[in-house]
Amino acid sequence: MNKEIHLVKRPEAAPTNEHIQIVEGEKPEPKEGEVLVQLLYVSVDPYMRGRMNDTKSYIPPFALNEPMQGGVIGEVVESHFSGLDQGDIVTGMLPWQEFSTVKGDQLRKIDPSLGPITYSLGLLGMPGLTAYFGLMDIGQPKQGETIVVSGAAGAVGTVVAQIGKIVGCHVVGIAGSDEKTSYLKETLGVDETINYKTENVAEALDKACPNGIDVYFDNVGGDISDAVYPRLNKFARIAQCGAIASYNVPNDQGPRMQMHLIKSSALVKGFTVGDYQDRFQEGFQHLSKWLQEGKLTYEETVKEGFDNIPDAFFGLFTGENLGKQLVKVNEPSQEK
Amino acid sequence: MNKEIHLVKRPEAAPTNEHIQIVEGEKPEPKEGEVLVQLLYVSVDPYMRGRMNDTKSYIPPFALNEPMQGGVIGEVVESHFSGLDQGDIVTGMLPWQEFSTVKGDQLRKIDPSLGPITYSLGLLGMPGLTAYFGLMDIGQPKQGETIVVSGAAGAVGTVVAQIGKIVGCHVVGIAGSDEKTSYLKETLGVDETINYKTENVAEALDKACPNGIDVYFDNVGGDISDAVYPRLNKFARIAQCGAIASYNVPNDQGPRMQMHLIKSSALVKGFTVGDYQDRFQEGFQHLSKWLQEGKLTYEETVKEGFDNIPDAFFGLFTGENLGKQLVKVNEPSQEK
Repeated sequence: MNKEIHLVKRPEAAPTNEHIQIVEGEKPEPKEGEVLVQLLYVSVDPYMRGRMNDTKSYIPPFALNEPMQGGVIGEVVESHFSGLDQGDIVTGMLPWQEFSTVKGDQLRKIDPSLGPITYSLGLLGMPGLTAYFGLMDIGQPKQGETIVVSGAAGAVGTVVAQIGKIVGCHVVGIAGSDEKTSYLKETLGVDETINYKTENVAEALDKACPNGIDVYFDNVGGDISDAVYPRLNKFARIAQCGAIASYNVPNDQGPRMQMHLIKSSALVKGFTVGDYQDRFQEGFQHLSKWLQEGKLTYEETVKEGFDNIPDAFFGLFTGENLGKQLVKVNEPSQEK
Repeated sequence: MNKEIHLVKRPEAAPTNEHIQIVEGEKPEPKEGEVLVQLLYVSVDPYMRGRMNDTKSYIPPFALNEPMQGGVIGEVVESHFSGLDQGDIVTGMLPWQEFSTVKGDQLRKIDPSLGPITYSLGLLGMPGLTAYFGLMDIGQPKQGETIVVSGAAGAVGTVVAQIGKIVGCHVVGIAGSDEKTSYLKETLGVDETINYKTENVAEALDKACPNGIDVYFDNVGGDISDAVYPRLNKFARIAQCGAIASYNVPNDQGPRMQMHLIKSSALVKGFTVGDYQDRFQEGFQHLSKWLQEGKLTYEETVKEGFDNIPDAFFGLFTGENLGKQLVKVNEPSQEK
């Protein structure tokens, strides 16, 4: 038997158990060139909400009555691909099901000696690269400038905030609980934090950014961003990474931003990490160097059990996770 | 006597005669280093609406009970500045009053042999440079791409549309009357036009842009831009020049743009022509070359008489002007 998590109904607003179903499938057989992978860890990410809609985007929508998918870590349990052996730990985009077959060249082998294997879904994976390229390529932070990060306690935001400190900026992190803001300030060394659930964000930004805002790394959009735009400095740069505040709000409306952009001659650039595919090695090199130098700290929130994948995903939209949200499905066999 | 046009009340919405008053002042006396300038032509521009508000922007607000000001053409009637002589035709930022004194080095002398003197308020002035830098530097149009221009029949839009054709793009112009769209198509050679007052802009864009939108030169914002954002191609560029649809709407709301920017990895850059001060000569050179080669056509709408300056300004917001809106206050003395 092979448990699978299917999208069974497209949500209009927040995704719930109504839209997702755990079904029993058959364990697939790998063909020549393929491997059979057993799921170890699943990454749940805000961008997946967009794939639940039936609309054109940078990545195709999930099909109804088929497994959702995303970044995972798995173990090769049977290999018909010359480059991978049984027992290898791999990462790739796979369906949310306990066992999958996939062409071997679609996977990347993880070297467990480099650090915890789960880092390949976070700091040394897509979220880390997203933080690196969005901040460095779009944000172009200069020493002494002020960087504001929304969703600062998430998988991407924690890395952005820390790179901001590494490059010598005044970093202001916005997050949704006192636990998160304490973590940002005390563990990550962020200069100022704002709890958007208990503080007036506009007033708090005035206090936290006495010299205005030069770089805004935006994971959330919505009314947090509405408060940032009027405070942009001349030639400010906004890395538009996510808009989680809008994902579950059909026809989300807000103040128009054009006049703020004209007043400040500011730049907004939407992006996804795939835009930087040619430069991934550059990103990995910087991130792993900073990690080895002890300049980057990395936090994970791990739920246990295949059946809890949906809840872990839903929790992203209520702000439950600190750092990278993962679900652990199985131990690697060598650790059992 | 010296007629002056004062801002007497700050508008909340559209400016009207309630906010402006024509008052009689005294003819000023030029000091050493200054010249006395008689007004010949006044430029009225959408951006002036922003200066009527008491808010921080790239240019300070107009003071209450003082003259409004802007780009003008005048004639030197008395000079105490060595670089200018009586009879010289000059351009600069001057108050809306019949006679002004100003330091001579604040003015630029116009060579009337280069073309109609009024071009220095348009094609060979700030609007032309705005079009050139916004399109070429931010829009980065490539041959065969699709450019959409809003406010296409205005002082900036007409130049953008024509440069778009010069660089080999499919150009779609949006304007507010059939007279304007005919002018764009028949005189300026724009490929497709949309009359936003009589057509559904979203549907019309689908027809006019079968390959999506690569560059959007936005003079208007508002619901015209709302229709453009969902149709942006991957890596689209938006030159955010103006937002005239929002200028008179306090707390203007609309659909949030962040998700569209992420989906298309698009860039939006606000700007004002002053951002390119170091490169003005480059802009003038291209514009005058294209003008001499017959590749650029230029249209002006001219009202007559000092007292009609307010009406000409108000008309910008109801879409009255085709091309550059000017007010002629006086003939140069040599033409009298």
